[in-house]
Amino acid sequence: MAPSNTPIRRGTSRRQLLVGGGAAGLGAVAALGIHQLVSTAEAVATQPELNGAGTVPFYGEHQAGITIAAPAHALFIGLNLLPDADKDSVRRMFKVLSGDAATLTQGRSALADSEPELATTPANLTVTFGVGSKAVELAGQQVPTWLKPLPKFSIDKLDEDLSGGDVFIQICSDDPVTLSHAARMLLKDARSFATIKWSHRGFRQAYGSHASGTTMRNLFGQVDGTSNPQPSDPNFDSLIWEPQGWLRGGTSVVVRKIQMNLDTWDELDRHGREQSVGRYLSNGAPLTSSPEAPEAEFDAPDFDATTAGGLKIIPEFSHVARSRSSDPGERILRRGYNYDDAATGSQISDAGLIFVSFQADVDRQYVPIQRRLDELDLLNQWTAPVGSAVFAILPGCQEGGFVGETLFAEDSTSGATP
Amino acid sequence: MAPSNTPIRRGTSRRQLLVGGGAAGLGAVAALGIHQLVSTAEAVATQPELNGAGTVPFYGEHQAGITIAAPAHALFIGLNLLPDADKDSVRRMFKVLSGDAATLTQGRSALADSEPELATTPANLTVTFGVGSKAVELAGQQVPTWLKPLPKFSIDKLDEDLSGGDVFIQICSDDPVTLSHAARMLLKDARSFATIKWSHRGFRQAYGSHASGTTMRNLFGQVDGTSNPQPSDPNFDSLIWEPQGWLRGGTSVVVRKIQMNLDTWDELDRHGREQSVGRYLSNGAPLTSSPEAPEAEFDAPDFDATTAGGLKIIPEFSHVARSRSSDPGERILRRGYNYDDAATGSQISDAGLIFVSFQADVDRQYVPIQRRLDELDLLNQWTAPVGSAVFAILPGCQEGGFVGETLFAEDSTSGATP
Repeated sequence: MAPSNTPIRRGTSRRQLLVGGGAAGLGAVAALGIHQLVSTAEAVATQPELNGAGTVPFYGEHQAGITIAAPAHALFIGLNLLPDADKDSVRRMFKVLSGDAATLTQGRSALADSEPELATTPANLTVTFGVGSKAVELAGQQVPTWLKPLPKFSIDKLDEDLSGGDVFIQICSDDPVTLSHAARMLLKDARSFATIKWSHRGFRQAYGSHASGTTMRNLFGQVDGTSNPQPSDPNFDSLIWEPQGWLRGGTSVVVRKIQMNLDTWDELDRHGREQSVGRYLSNGAPLTSSPEAPEAEFDAPDFDATTAGGLKIIPEFSHVARSRSSDPGERILRRGYNYDDAATGSQISDAGLIFVSFQADVDRQYVPIQRRLDELDLLNQWTAPVGSAVFAILPGCQEGGFVGETLFAEDSTSGATP
Repeated sequence: MAPSNTPIRRGTSRRQLLVGGGAAGLGAVAALGIHQLVSTAEAVATQPELNGAGTVPFYGEHQAGITIAAPAHALFIGLNLLPDADKDSVRRMFKVLSGDAATLTQGRSALADSEPELATTPANLTVTFGVGSKAVELAGQQVPTWLKPLPKFSIDKLDEDLSGGDVFIQICSDDPVTLSHAARMLLKDARSFATIKWSHRGFRQAYGSHASGTTMRNLFGQVDGTSNPQPSDPNFDSLIWEPQGWLRGGTSVVVRKIQMNLDTWDELDRHGREQSVGRYLSNGAPLTSSPEAPEAEFDAPDFDATTAGGLKIIPEFSHVARSRSSDPGERILRRGYNYDDAATGSQISDAGLIFVSFQADVDRQYVPIQRRLDELDLLNQWTAPVGSAVFAILPGCQEGGFVGETLFAEDSTSGATP
């Protein structure tokens, strides 16, 4: 839920940092129906710059939707390939889906789009594709050693129906209607090749309700995602991107649906909550910094600091302490979303976090962190992973190519189109 | 799904019209962390005016969340009172819930708010309360004749678990995190009195992605909600507000979860879709107007116009034709939301519309329209109501009072606090 460990510069905007490969093309605003604006003075004063026309480039060395700041809404889908899938059908599927994504993300309708009007407001739409081991094997490429289910953790309460899958699609947008339409267009084209195994729909604070660059809060009220690696970090590329083979320029994703028990969390007082995480609820700062200064969120935690009585100020079993590592290569890029499903009966909430992390190597970066958290993390008491999946996130492609093409390259070391 | 029938002035902004009793106080923007803004020129140029601090007044003759333009996200909840509920417990419940709503909607934490940081971004949060007949009877007041389940319509495929209820809460906000937090605060306080029977979570196009006043589109791609009554209509008050008794200043709501079969809808071409609704998909204009001019959306349909071959231009069995009435009192104020639940297996979508309409009298206004649509509406082929509920929406209250107080007034004709 909360941070990993490494200090980053204070006061620097997250948006500024998290632009990575695909910078947001937010400029085109004028296209929408400005004549419809309200003409009263108050309304004009509060009229937002529209971001419906905002687009994120589709083509590039890496896929979009990984290092760019996360928009307000996301849908994560795990697909199972049909039993008769083969190399050729997987190739055709990615060619079609990649084509859909290339047009939809630019605010244009997909081929045979039945609701083209719903495609004209991309609102920073991104579509990101991944594969499980079966798709890699069908394509005849080498399966990365980490591309398998995570080791079983003691806190897991996994539902098989919310886990695994052969193909992964992540769709993000600041507009939930755009998201639904894009998902439908993609899933219609996927249906000849695959069925839906699971889907998780998540949200963050809306575009326009907070200053850009504000770190999100999860439904425990915690600031969540503070100490992500930054593109300006010297080892950023090696933390995120696979350097060679058919996956060069790609990465991996871990997607876990984590139930948060808000009812038992409620029984904990504010002090107890802050001790369990190791950060202040007010501003997300480590307990060794100020709970008031907004920039203190980005201070490095001081794990050695003690109280007058000799107790650690940041408890050793807190989430922030357990997730840290002295190994600078043991970091992950988190990009999670809240979920809040329909509660029924005496339940008040069925809510939690769709944990999403990107890293070059799951076994080297994610697993050790999660092992430490599994052994002892105060937050475990209130959380239960119910879904879990690992995918290889495909490299990006250039215009004329398609995401997935390197799976079918003859020479897998070149990453070139066949 | 689509419009009722009466012409409204063209080119007038919906936002301007739909302000009703509680005008949005969108002014206060400066409070948020402006120091965190990105400093690059491009980012500054696209920085929206923040609307996180936007508030809608809670106190007034009418409750908020009815005539004001609908924000991007909504949660509709039907509660069952506990078996031991009585007049006193219902009164206590509304006192507590009304107090929560009065503070949360103004961006302040509710009493014993366990995540106060999630309360500081109201983003036009409104909370609107209603009651079913059981709560009215417990309070010893007269049950309106229309406060009962709707007559059975032939298209209904109702699931009892998605229908009915004793108490209704509608929560709307432009920020989905704010919405989740407000819902949880309210439901925690409701749990001593009631359990959740059903909840529907819905969305519209996001704040900031379209010009204010743009009519929403549903997931069929249709412009949805064009010909709502407007506060400037001479009979607006009588269409919406109950004029007397304990419900004076209140209204009624019909909430129906309507599945839309996007798969079979897809089999229909664009012309067929437009014929079934009687409006153009491009701009929502009636088929007797221009499909290009944006303002044509608000043109009055000409139901008498015929083609050279003598056929009606707007088919008689189209949704817009079947829902019209020559009776100016037979109109409803629609305020629906899209839903898009998780699809599984060979399903591609489990999506539709949370139909929501407000009207002074369900039997006089809603039922005749729905009867005509039930008998013959081309859209019925692709839609199926799966949940249905009717509630009396309580009058507003003044500071010091609470929503629900008139249920407990000794003199039910005065509407005053006991």
